[in-house]
Amino acid sequence: MPLPATVTVTTADTRYGILIDAGLLASASTWAGLPKAAQAVIVTNTTVDALHGDALRRALAPLYPSVSTVALPDGEVYKTWQTLNLIFDHLLGHGCDRKTVLFALGGGVVGDMAGFAAASYMRGVPFVQVPTTLLAQVDSSVGGKTAINHPLGKNMIGAFYQPCRVVCDLDTLGTLPARETSAGLAEIIKYGPIADAAFFDWIEEHVDALRAHDRAALAYAVQRSCEIKAEVVGQDEREAGLRAILNFGHTFGHAIEAGLGYGEWLHGEAVGCGMVMAAELSALLGLVPPAFVERLARLCERAGLPVKGPRLGIGRYLELMRVDKKAEGGEIRFVLIDAPGHALLRSAPDALVAQAIECHLAA
Amino acid sequence: MPLPATVTVTTADTRYGILIDAGLLASASTWAGLPKAAQAVIVTNTTVDALHGDALRRALAPLYPSVSTVALPDGEVYKTWQTLNLIFDHLLGHGCDRKTVLFALGGGVVGDMAGFAAASYMRGVPFVQVPTTLLAQVDSSVGGKTAINHPLGKNMIGAFYQPCRVVCDLDTLGTLPARETSAGLAEIIKYGPIADAAFFDWIEEHVDALRAHDRAALAYAVQRSCEIKAEVVGQDEREAGLRAILNFGHTFGHAIEAGLGYGEWLHGEAVGCGMVMAAELSALLGLVPPAFVERLARLCERAGLPVKGPRLGIGRYLELMRVDKKAEGGEIRFVLIDAPGHALLRSAPDALVAQAIECHLAA
Repeated sequence: MPLPATVTVTTADTRYGILIDAGLLASASTWAGLPKAAQAVIVTNTTVDALHGDALRRALAPLYPSVSTVALPDGEVYKTWQTLNLIFDHLLGHGCDRKTVLFALGGGVVGDMAGFAAASYMRGVPFVQVPTTLLAQVDSSVGGKTAINHPLGKNMIGAFYQPCRVVCDLDTLGTLPARETSAGLAEIIKYGPIADAAFFDWIEEHVDALRAHDRAALAYAVQRSCEIKAEVVGQDEREAGLRAILNFGHTFGHAIEAGLGYGEWLHGEAVGCGMVMAAELSALLGLVPPAFVERLARLCERAGLPVKGPRLGIGRYLELMRVDKKAEGGEIRFVLIDAPGHALLRSAPDALVAQAIECHLAA
Repeated sequence: MPLPATVTVTTADTRYGILIDAGLLASASTWAGLPKAAQAVIVTNTTVDALHGDALRRALAPLYPSVSTVALPDGEVYKTWQTLNLIFDHLLGHGCDRKTVLFALGGGVVGDMAGFAAASYMRGVPFVQVPTTLLAQVDSSVGGKTAINHPLGKNMIGAFYQPCRVVCDLDTLGTLPARETSAGLAEIIKYGPIADAAFFDWIEEHVDALRAHDRAALAYAVQRSCEIKAEVVGQDEREAGLRAILNFGHTFGHAIEAGLGYGEWLHGEAVGCGMVMAAELSALLGLVPPAFVERLARLCERAGLPVKGPRLGIGRYLELMRVDKKAEGGEIRFVLIDAPGHALLRSAPDALVAQAIECHLAA
């Protein structure tokens, strides 16, 4: 596959490009044509700042009279209002005006918080996503979802807000711990069952190459994932219907994350296990044969993902799923699969949901 | 003028009606056709809840299976994240889903906070404005601006988010303290100089009737103010240009509010005095004759507004104005008048700004 790839995302209000290539941070053309401003502010975390902060600062120095950095503490547990406020304190403390451009350099947590800060600061300033994890490159950088967590629920407070550009530099994935690569693979795998049977086959063939950071394989996986997500989001920006299929595995996954406390499992790990449970529920409802569950579980295992959920208690799982944003009037709408490459939304009896969970709990 | 009046606001994404009449809270037709949901949540403050909470709860009880109330502490000093979080705590604590309808019952502070909560909760739920102060009816209920304050600046964190309906019940103005009525008149007066010379004349003729809560006068003043604001906002939802004229008096006014500490002067009081300073600056730049400043100051005085600013020190005024959202790259863009009914945006030399302030400081 030839590099570089550009995926264009079109929404009701705007249109932006996702650049996918190695060496993007250091290339001047990556940053051409962004909004002009007196100040650029890089929002990152301390870990990513040490790895890639200097490269981004060097790239932006010729373009903005002032480039400053807010380095947040690293981790999902910091995806809170208190941490978000560090960004606002910085912006106001530096006299940033409403043209200031924010650059989100990091994974999904940084992207979600910087995006919500950009959406809310002076009711909206431009921002650019520079995702440095595989999960953020294939998932949180497309679709305009930004949010922080609340003690009673994940991503409960946020905004739909689109970046003006997304820069996926594949080189940043080289510094990613193996566990984070696997978490990113969970979201890549997701696009197969819900939307593209051929891509599902392709991932099965290339999962070892992806885990080994083969650049061509990563480039294609990121590109195809972004294309699918962009297509779905373009049709349903505000998650009225179709977009919800992107949450395959997420209802079960959120229960795992919330039940253990955010940060115990990585989001992608919870999604991986959640997809297996959702596939099981699909099989229990007669939508797919049991072999499909086996196939998906095997692929998740090969991707290095946990496929057995924690023993939170079935009642606790159900309770946590009911507070999910996708629930309406207390009824949970599950993303289920009725054929490889095709998802649907429907509710299910508690007894079957419980059985689907039971089948995939840790010993 | 015949009642009831309806002003329709059209924005890029949506269209909603502002109902203006007496007796609206108790009338079933007021609430017909709103989004259906399992829950309605009234966001108000303790003062307004005691006056009008029961009336709204009675009106909504037939329409929503569950109607609950969050009564916030009363005052601009509570327009903070901490108070906003009380709304989120309530919504999550009551298991509110993304169809839940929020009703903002109160003045501008309640409207701004409930609106931002609606914009952010699960990335957006529907909301209805029920403004109970004159200022909120003519100003903050139109235009979709929502926000909270930050210790370093007013309305610095927020969203553009449109209500699905605005209900201006003129009866709620009967319980308004005289000082709040005057504060509302400041925003009404504003629409004359910036957009409508004939309305400016009308206000001069009816200012005593307005202060005496004459219902027909109030109805016309609210209607004409909403019409002008809706027209301006319809042309420039995101404040790229034209909309900024609605901030006439606000740059100086924000400095007064921030300099004294939010809540010392009412917002409308600060805007009244700020308009006089902005008119003075217009005169110093040769845009209007000095008699115009006199005319505006006299009208503000008759409306019961302070027309002499606090002695914060000129340097402090300039410093506080530079952090205003309308400033760009440190340059302040003033809303100035070059003829009754016509405003423009421009910068001005610090020396003239200082002189405009000096002319209108308290002894």
